Amino acid sequence: MAEAQSDLSIARGAVKRPIADVAARLGIPPEALIPYGRDKAKIDAGFLRDLGGRPDGKLILVTAINPTPAGEGKTTTTVGLGDGLSALGRRTAICLREPSLGPCFGQKGGAAGGGHAQVVPMEDINLHFTGDFHAITTAHNLLAAAIDNHIHWGNELGLDPRRIVWRRVVDMNDRALRDIVQSLGGPANGVPRESGFDITVASEVMAIVCLAADMKDLKERLGRIVIGYRFDRTAVHARDLKVDGAMAVLLRDAMLPNLVQTLENNPAFVHGGPFANIAHGCNSVVATRAALKLADYVVTEAGFGADLGAEKFFDIKCRQAGLRPAATVVVATVRALKMNGGVAKSDLGREDVEAVRRGSVNLKRHVANCLQYGVPVVVAINHFGTDTDAEIEVVKVAAREAGVEAILCRHWAEGSAGALELARKVAELVDSGEATFHPLYPDEMSLLGKIETVVEKIYHGAGVTAEPLALRELQRFEEDGYGHLPVCMAKTQYSFSTDPSKLGAPTDHVVHVRSVRLAAGAGFLVAICGDILTMPGLPRHPAAEHIHLTDAGEVEGLF
Amino acid sequence: MAEAQSDLSIARGAVKRPIADVAARLGIPPEALIPYGRDKAKIDAGFLRDLGGRPDGKLILVTAINPTPAGEGKTTTTVGLGDGLSALGRRTAICLREPSLGPCFGQKGGAAGGGHAQVVPMEDINLHFTGDFHAITTAHNLLAAAIDNHIHWGNELGLDPRRIVWRRVVDMNDRALRDIVQSLGGPANGVPRESGFDITVASEVMAIVCLAADMKDLKERLGRIVIGYRFDRTAVHARDLKVDGAMAVLLRDAMLPNLVQTLENNPAFVHGGPFANIAHGCNSVVATRAALKLADYVVTEAGFGADLGAEKFFDIKCRQAGLRPAATVVVATVRALKMNGGVAKSDLGREDVEAVRRGSVNLKRHVANCLQYGVPVVVAINHFGTDTDAEIEVVKVAAREAGVEAILCRHWAEGSAGALELARKVAELVDSGEATFHPLYPDEMSLLGKIETVVEKIYHGAGVTAEPLALRELQRFEEDGYGHLPVCMAKTQYSFSTDPSKLGAPTDHVVHVRSVRLAAGAGFLVAICGDILTMPGLPRHPAAEHIHLTDAGEVEGLF
Repeated sequence: MAEAQSDLSIARGAVKRPIADVAARLGIPPEALIPYGRDKAKIDAGFLRDLGGRPDGKLILVTAINPTPAGEGKTTTTVGLGDGLSALGRRTAICLREPSLGPCFGQKGGAAGGGHAQVVPMEDINLHFTGDFHAITTAHNLLAAAIDNHIHWGNELGLDPRRIVWRRVVDMNDRALRDIVQSLGGPANGVPRESGFDITVASEVMAIVCLAADMKDLKERLGRIVIGYRFDRTAVHARDLKVDGAMAVLLRDAMLPNLVQTLENNPAFVHGGPFANIAHGCNSVVATRAALKLADYVVTEAGFGADLGAEKFFDIKCRQAGLRPAATVVVATVRALKMNGGVAKSDLGREDVEAVRRGSVNLKRHVANCLQYGVPVVVAINHFGTDTDAEIEVVKVAAREAGVEAILCRHWAEGSAGALELARKVAELVDSGEATFHPLYPDEMSLLGKIETVVEKIYHGAGVTAEPLALRELQRFEEDGYGHLPVCMAKTQYSFSTDPSKLGAPTDHVVHVRSVRLAAGAGFLVAICGDILTMPGLPRHPAAEHIHLTDAGEVEGLF
Repeated sequence: MAEAQSDLSIARGAVKRPIADVAARLGIPPEALIPYGRDKAKIDAGFLRDLGGRPDGKLILVTAINPTPAGEGKTTTTVGLGDGLSALGRRTAICLREPSLGPCFGQKGGAAGGGHAQVVPMEDINLHFTGDFHAITTAHNLLAAAIDNHIHWGNELGLDPRRIVWRRVVDMNDRALRDIVQSLGGPANGVPRESGFDITVASEVMAIVCLAADMKDLKERLGRIVIGYRFDRTAVHARDLKVDGAMAVLLRDAMLPNLVQTLENNPAFVHGGPFANIAHGCNSVVATRAALKLADYVVTEAGFGADLGAEKFFDIKCRQAGLRPAATVVVATVRALKMNGGVAKSDLGREDVEAVRRGSVNLKRHVANCLQYGVPVVVAINHFGTDTDAEIEVVKVAAREAGVEAILCRHWAEGSAGALELARKVAELVDSGEATFHPLYPDEMSLLGKIETVVEKIYHGAGVTAEPLALRELQRFEEDGYGHLPVCMAKTQYSFSTDPSKLGAPTDHVVHVRSVRLAAGAGFLVAICGDILTMPGLPRHPAAEHIHLTDAGEVEGLF
């Protein structure tokens, strides 16, 4: 393993090919590319429209056990598997989410894979990239400005200033903006009220861009956004403020998928990045659909662990977009399973077979959950240098007990060469045609029934409780015609329960719904269970303190 | 005149050439271009560095009389003159500011010239363009987040939360954000304090990007920003928070000039766009310098009328960057002079020779002011269909009385063909080599002395008064070593005085300095005289209500 090399230094050493050559491997002609520099491009809307008649390739989801501070490497495995399938001669495309700028300057550093399984240009992807998130921020805030402007000029729509649910967004970790009082300073500055900012990935506009089928669908979804309520509690929509058209104009380019390449010059679409708690946590439908038309195998990822990411991928994205996944890869690491087995992060370097065995209940539950969707599963063990053979064997046994195979992967250190066995197995599963995908619950089930179903079948909890107001609102949403929507569960990513300290495979936990939110444009109902931060803060010493630009213009300190 | 055609429909009918062909006309090789689509590109930093040894072309400033609601057409004339010089076979580059998104959705519509004198792609330039403003917004707000984060984690630097002068910015007209109370909601959200947002063009980061000579200078200027004061009144700088490096990383691409083309396929750099009241109102030094190395004639513009725009161009931009302009064009229209002569906007269609004569005092004073800088002046009369021969003759006589020539231009209707006479005259002035540029006041003059000099020689006021606090702060800034900086006057653009209703050429007005602000990174001292809005609001019916996207992805309603 080349652990001495940072992700940035590996990425910078990449021998990139012109993006037109990468596109050509998927049969995308140069005239269908809108270049952003030499190594990034968007795909032209006309070309995308003309793909409609082609048959679809096979869709492979990469998900994971519950995340721990030890790291799982879901994006890394998505890239490694894509490179592995390409190395086997399969026509493959990768679909990833775009990273958010905020966390990049907070704790996380970059988010474009790692080691020898990355997408490049790593710095650009982690910074402004092709401007999609800035466009989403701007469109979101235009609607916010229009709301306060409407009230300022007489409030013809009769909006109740206390019941405006549309906040503002910024792509920054900035706790100071979570709760504000705005419009102070006198009549010229509008009507004072409480409000605040979320981070851009939490914007409903982000979810809409990622779920919209095309420009027409985008416009309709933007118009449907509920921004607040009148004094009689009837909803006011974005279309009532007449800025949905201008929002769509701002999002025109952001709707086009971005094409980049892996370190091995294989095509990767990196497009859209909604939060995986209060939104659905997957890359855009537009990119996934384009990839399916252009490649025989499409490898994509979903946010957080399978209880949040895979569930929402299946029940929200696949349901809305009519996608039929052909295989699921559940990523696990020995280290993360050890933490699920009760080992502290500082002790992860020591062999502890029993802890791995204890922690493997987490893996087994995720595998069983994923199998419920009718899609075959394989486990990818993302190798770390400290893993012992005995520990790895325990994971393989656990997978077998769950009815699936676990394959050791070394793509972080070796690139595609380290993921060939996984790629072969995934290709075999996909080609077998055994997948019979179906979502977890039908559209017709009540909203509360859907929440209860997810808690029972995915979280394995003992039941659901809810605030009386939340129950009343669920009923009101059904009366208002939103009962057919899927539910988007917002809870901690660290546990099957709503208590982040309960690792492994907890049972008997009750899930309490604190509040519910309607995302009428995105097309789901958010059930908030626990403390969900929609605006992160910066740590005492943010990563930004170590990020620099050399006089020659090279970025230092992104990792 | 083709008045039936909108700017957008003319722009959309443009026969654009590939941006590489446009670049080739300035000798920029394809490998020095960073493409953004097919019709926009940034110029590579390495190529810009290697231009250093070349001789400079000649710099021509386009400025104007005081703006009125009748419209003057400064950007239009800049484009027309550039096209005219190109039509004469002169190797010419145009340098414009980037428009701000906020006003585009408010009252203004687009801002990329007009009629047959525009830069294209008009929609892109008016929307996200190459992302420069978004990068500036993000860098600015990263510093803001770092400030509140620092206080939250113990305030080691001893910042006085009541004396933080760094606000946040957003590229949106949003009056609700002018005055806020932030960090509410308990200890996890930081220390509550009053603050607010300005529009991005008012950010000191915008001014810094536009005045920095290169990446090294950019980093130093960012580090020098004063963000607030300690309880002992000593200044705290951006470098003390250690995020100046990360801010520079965010601004890396924003520092590279953008190349687009006019409707006649001539090269235009559109880069940077600081406010012309609390900042200096000119395009970037980087773009202007590159243009001077690549072309024999460079036509650029400055914001608002000559009292603000030209004064700052000469006394801030040219002083800091060592530029030596060779000619000045003062744009006037019969309609705007009529308004300066007391005619209401609704009556502009009627011939009124006397009103034009009365209003021409405004033009004469601007011409005399500009001549003070040792640079030859010519007046461009931007023709409107309602102008009569008698009215135009009055303007020509007024110009002659001011010692310069006035030339009628029809570039709005005719493109370069309508600006040939102006182009010939400008080339003649430039080639004469008669310019002996010198700024209005020396660096060594006291800060108050500089303010008094501008008021006396440019505004022709009777004197300067100031709040006692402003006077004390001027003294403190001098003690702190900022006495050598030029002053940036922030006052209404509608009048030589601080009263927007005093049109024409007022005298006997006293200019009152309400407050002063240090822009240590940008390198000037802002003197605020009157009500200066750094965050515009939206009108009752914002332009956004009429901006739409067709299902095919075409923008409608930008004009």
